[in-house]
This record gives sequence, C-alpha cells and structure tokens, in this order.
Amino acid sequence: MSYGKLIEYAEAPPEAQAVMDDIKAKRGVPDVNNAWKAMARHPAVMRRFWERAQAVMQPGALDARTKELIYLAVSVANGCHYCSASHAALAGKKGATEPELAEMVEIVGLALEGNSYATFYGQPVDDALKE
Amino acid sequence: MSYGKLIEYAEAPPEAQAVMDDIKAKRGVPDVNNAWKAMARHPAVMRRFWERAQAVMQPGALDARTKELIYLAVSVANGCHYCSASHAALAGKKGATEPELAEMVEIVGLALEGNSYATFYGQPVDDALKE
Amino acid sequence: MSYGKLIEYAEAPPEAQAVMDDIKAKRGVPDVNNAWKAMARHPAVMRRFWERAQAVMQPGALDARTKELIYLAVSVANGCHYCSASHAALAGKKGATEPELAEMVEIVGLALEGNSYATFYGQPVDDALKE
Amino acid sequence: MSYGKLIEYAEAPPEAQAVMDDIKAKRGVPDVNNAWKAMARHPAVMRRFWERAQAVMQPGALDARTKELIYLAVSVANGCHYCSASHAALAGKKGATEPELAEMVEIVGLALEGNSYATFYGQPVDDALKE
Amino acid sequence: MSYGKLIEYAEAPPEAQAVMDDIKAKRGVPDVNNAWKAMARHPAVMRRFWERAQAVMQPGALDARTKELIYLAVSVANGCHYCSASHAALAGKKGATEPELAEMVEIVGLALEGNSYATFYGQPVDDALKE
Amino acid sequence: MSYGKLIEYAEAPPEAQAVMDDIKAKRGVPDVNNAWKAMARHPAVMRRFWERAQAVMQPGALDARTKELIYLAVSVANGCHYCSASHAALAGKKGATEPELAEMVEIVGLALEGNSYATFYGQPVDDALKE
Repeated sequence: MSYGKLIEYAEAPPEAQAVMDDIKAKRGVPDVNNAWKAMARHPAVMRRFWERAQAVMQPGALDARTKELIYLAVSVANGCHYCSASHAALAGKKGATEPELAEMVEIVGLALEGNSYATFYGQPVDDALKE
Repeated sequence: MSYGKLIEYAEAPPEAQAVMDDIKAKRGVPDVNNAWKAMARHPAVMRRFWERAQAVMQPGALDARTKELIYLAVSVANGCHYCSASHAALAGKKGATEPELAEMVEIVGLALEGNSYATFYGQPVDDALKE
Repeated sequence: MSYGKLIEYAEAPPEAQAVMDDIKAKRGVPDVNNAWKAMARHPAVMRRFWERAQAVMQPGALDARTKELIYLAVSVANGCHYCSASHAALAGKKGATEPELAEMVEIVGLALEGNSYATFYGQPVDDALKE
Repeated sequence: MSYGKLIEYAEAPPEAQAVMDDIKAKRGVPDVNNAWKAMARHPAVMRRFWERAQAVMQPGALDARTKELIYLAVSVANGCHYCSASHAALAGKKGATEPELAEMVEIVGLALEGNSYATFYGQPVDDALKE
Repeated sequence: MSYGKLIEYAEAPPEAQAVMDDIKAKRGVPDVNNAWKAMARHPAVMRRFWERAQAVMQPGALDARTKELIYLAVSVANGCHYCSASHAALAGKKGATEPELAEMVEIVGLALEGNSYATFYGQPVDDALKE
Repeated sequence: MSYGKLIEYAEAPPEAQAVMDDIKAKRGVPDVNNAWKAMARHPAVMRRFWERAQAVMQPGALDARTKELIYLAVSVANGCHYCSASHAALAGKKGATEPELAEMVEIVGLALEGNSYATFYGQPVDDALKE
C-alpha cells in the first residue's frame, strides 16, 4: 500500500473522476488539488467528504469567508500544514485579506495558551455558564 | 500545591486584584470567571495573559465577534470544554447567534476530518500553494 | 545536534546494530525503516521502544491486524504522517485490505467530529456509564 | 447561551425528538445518552451526525466491533473521556471484551510514544512507503 | 463495562495489590492516587506502566525534578487536567517551586503559539538543523 | 497567498528587518532561521512573538536550559518537527546534552501514555490534589 502517490484524472476510477469534474466545475479550476488526487484511491470516501464539505461550508448563518477562517484556524491549531496552506488559499478566494489571516493565526496561539491555563489550573465551569 | 482552589477577590494578592478590577470594569461584570480566580495564584502570568488577550482580541481587520468564533473553534478542536463554554458566552455577548455557533461547531468537525485525510494520504503541498 | 540524519547499519553503535539485526530477522526485511535509522542516535531509547512495541503489538486478545489498525488510527488522529504511512504498510502485511483502511480513516474523522461535539456541549457522563 | 443543560425528550424540538426516537428504536434503549440530549439544542447538527455515524459505523469491510475499537482508541488518544466511556460501552455491546479493551488502551499509549519519536527524529518517509 | 469506578485495595486483584503495595512503599504514602485505583481493573497494564514510569522518571542525565516538570508540561499541553494536577504535586515533592510551575505553564503556552506559526507558515527545516 | 516562501532580509519590510537585526545580535548568528523568514510576511505578529519569546524564555526561577527542554518537549508532544528541531539546537546551545535530550523524548512518550490512561479510566481528581 502506498500513500505518497497522486492519482491523476486519467488514471482515476470513474467515481473519483466524477468528483474531480464536480470540483473543477464548481471551483472554476483547471485541475484539483493534490489532496483530492491522493484521496482518489478511495473514491467513496472522497465523494462523501466532498459532498459534506460543500454542505457544511456553504453560506448560512455564517458567510463563506468566516467559515473558511474557522476551518483554517482549526487546521493550524491541529498542526496540519497542508490543510492550512490549502484553506488559506480558499479563504483568500472568498475574500479574506492578509491582515485578517495574520490576526487569525495570532488568535490560534492565544487560544492554545488560554487552553493550557484551563488545563493546568483546572477551575470548574462557572454556574453562570451552565444556566 | 493545590489546583482546584479558586482565589476570591478578598484573598487575592494585590497584583491579581488589579487584574480582576480591570476585567470587571472593561467587561461590566460584577465578578470575574473562575478561570481568573484560579490564575490568581500566579498574578504575573494572569496579568500578562489578560493584557495579551485584550490586544489580540480587540477589533482589527477582523471584528470582535469573528475573533471570538475563531477562539471558540480552536478551543473546541483542542478539547477544552471550559474554554469552549466561556468563549461561547463571550461570543454571544459580541453578537454571535445560536445558528452561527451550530455552524461553527460543525465546521470544527469537518476540519478535523479533513486534517485526518491529509495526514493519512500525505500528499505534498501543491506548487501553486507555494508560489 | 542534528536530527534529519539517518544512521546506517555500518556507522551505528553496537547496541543499535543489535536492534537492527533483530528487526530485520523478525520482520524478514533486508533493512530497517528510516524511523529506526534515526532513533539509532539514542540506542537505549531505540531498544526499549522496539522491545515494548513487540510486547504490546503481539497477538493477544486482539489479533495482530486489528492491533495495527488501532495503532494506525491513533497515528492518523494524532497527525503523524510518517507513522501513518509505515503502519499502513505493516497493517497490509498483517492482512488489512484497502477497503478496511478506507473505512478506518473515515472512522477517525467521525470520532474527531464526535469528540468536538462532546467538548462543545460538555454533557456530564451518564450515570449508566459509571456503574 | 448555556452548554451544560440537557434537553429531555419532552422539551426537545420535533426534529430532535425524531432523532431520539430513531436512536432508541435502533439501539433498543429506553432513553438516549446525555450526548444526544445536549446536542438537541442544535437539531440539524444532531440529525446529520446521527445519520453519518450510522453510515460510517455499520458493518462493512470491518465488523462493528472493530469499528468501535477504532473509534474508542481515537477518542482516548484525543483526550475525550465522555467519548471514551460511551464508546467503551458500545464496544462491549458489540462484543468487545475487557481484555481487548485493556490491549486497545495500551496500543494507544504505544502509538503516541512512537509518534513522538517520529516528530523528534524527523526522518523522511522511506521511498518504499511511497511506491 | 464501567469506567468511573475506583477499585480500592481490599477489592483489587492480587496483581494490582502488589503494584499498590510497591507504590505506597516507594512513595511513602498511605494510599495510592485514584489513577492507580482506576487502572486496577487491568492489573497487567497497571504493572507495566508503573514499572516503565519508574525506569523513565528515575534520576539520570536529568534530575527527578526536571523530569517531572517535563512530564507536567506535556500533560498540560495535551489537555489532561488529572495528569497535570497529580504531576504538579509530584513535582512539588521533588523540589519544584510555585514560581517554577508558573514559568513552566507560561512556556507551554508560548510553545503552542510558536508551533501554530510553524504550521501556518510552513517553512522548511533549515539545512543547518539537518547537518 | 503563498506560505512556503521565505522572505530574505533584503526583501523584508523594515519592521521585520528590525526584528531580524535584533535576533542576529542577541543570538550572535549571521542569519535568522527559516521560521523568522516565513513570519516576516506579518511583521507585527513576528515582532510580538519575538518579544514574548524573550520575556518567557529568559532565565528566571528556571534556568534557560530547563526552559528550552520544556519548550522542546511540548513541541514534540504537539507534533511539530520544525519546532522540535530548532529548539533542540537552542537547547544544545544552552547546555543540554544528547543524553538529556534522549531522556526528554522518552518522558514525552511516557506522559502521553499516562494521559491516555487518565482519559480512558476517567478517575476523578483526588481530594488531596484539590486542597
């Protein structure tokens, strides 16, 4: 089993090609990112993730740009550089600016610092937060 | 050394009382959250975190509500319930709505799922993302 | 101190060579993975980890294939691509199939999503789960 | 906004009651776990997670018991005690035994230890793992 | 299967009692912490962890106090409050002071912030760090 | 937006050059690490992190070497290889030895294993740890 290999459109199974076609059409790009070429080895997982991603990331109570900033911040906090780089690009396409990304990444560090204090000091949840 | 104990204002050292006074004044609350009462055992750390939190979370390129949603999403992804509960309350005070929080938490799960695929399939970063 | 360097058998200290010999003999491979060549700088740590890995991963109540799937899932959830790639290969040698790996990685994403909801909503553990 | 509160069936919105009814019927239990009562504040998220959980966890290439062991191991590695306790119970219902759970948790610790060495030593992925 | 339950000495299986006796004798305490009472349901895992913990944490190139500070910092970064609280107490017994713990927890937050920048900016490892 | 790119001194904005000058002067190095060249795209974040890092990492109750070992251990536990490699080098400059680093990394693995047991068994915090 090999995991570094990217599966290009021509060699991808039909179910994966259908997802690639849909991504290219909806994002208006000539080719899909490496993430999708790697997932093409498991077309059903790839299809379900693409469908779920569209449903969750579509504009709703939160706009598309804010949703990408949240996805990006979680990916940074979780240590995934690929995810961070690809969603920073998506955030940019959806209107996020450089100064916004710079603020976002500093908030990630602040939150992780704050989380550490909560773990160390271990205070109980305030009653007012439970009502 | 004991970590469950909350230090109330009356018993807190002066440096911690000064931070508590500032928090109560700026947030317009009668008392500070348990997180601050627990941190009061280490007043210098408490003061630095409070000052840094204000600097990072103040409205800038991103508005205060969006910043809280990002802080909250990172705390959820990082498994800190206290942080999640307290910043959900702050997000609400800064204008976040229930439907927005519901979308936020679902994005966290989607991002962690996507991060897992990136770790498993291990695709290299696209050249286009490096330019 | 340098960490990228791989220590080949010929240049490895005797204690590390002994571990490499044992790995090659027990796995029936001509050479050890890079993970072991990197750990060879600290032979005692390398030896202890190899001995512990054998003890924990040997067939017991759980068979070797299931144990590798668990090790692999944890590595994916924890963001370690090297660990994921090397244990996916080991899982394959122990009988795991492509469809099984595809299901495993989707479960990792589902679990991380579910964990996020537990952190956000913060429900107490059910009494029935404590009895 | 309050997060500790559990929403019982009688007070849950219709969409959440429908999910609770389905969980009770399919699991053959008189009531749902606290996790679902907490999620009931966001019925659409609750419904989507329940539907996705059923699809991913149903027997496929991997049997239901193995899938639960994987979900459980990820939850333990990710630090979610609620998730660990609830899925240990589910694993038991699906046939996992105490000795299997004891082996599972020890594998989690071994994997996290191994992941740490990979992060520290930073060896590149072996070519043989990329082919 | 129930996980909240603590197994007291009198009801513990002989293999677990032997570990409890050893912990009480070596630490000079009248009873073991809850962590050990919970692990007593799986005596073999409990014994192996106790033996490994003693081997890894004994004074070596690093003294016992420094080792506890490292164990503690990792537990804080990893979000484990029980581990943090119990190892803060052990660190104190081994000579760590309040000001040292205050500095330790602030370093954890700084490191997690720095890690976030490395994930976001994704710089390659410097050649000088590989030599 | 591109994240792989390193910004060399000559092309860096003045605020970033000032930080680079300060790092080179205080560390006595001819050039800064890639981490700083990547952060130079966001000079204000870079400056704040450099100032905070100096304040937190300066000798205090804990000496500089111990502080680096803690930062390093957290980075290893958190899966950041770049951070681990760069702080292992800093630890070495501040007096940490190879045997000390070998013990540090084994403690990280032990702590993560111990944290897993705490998550799985879920024992409550001992009263003695709360007093």
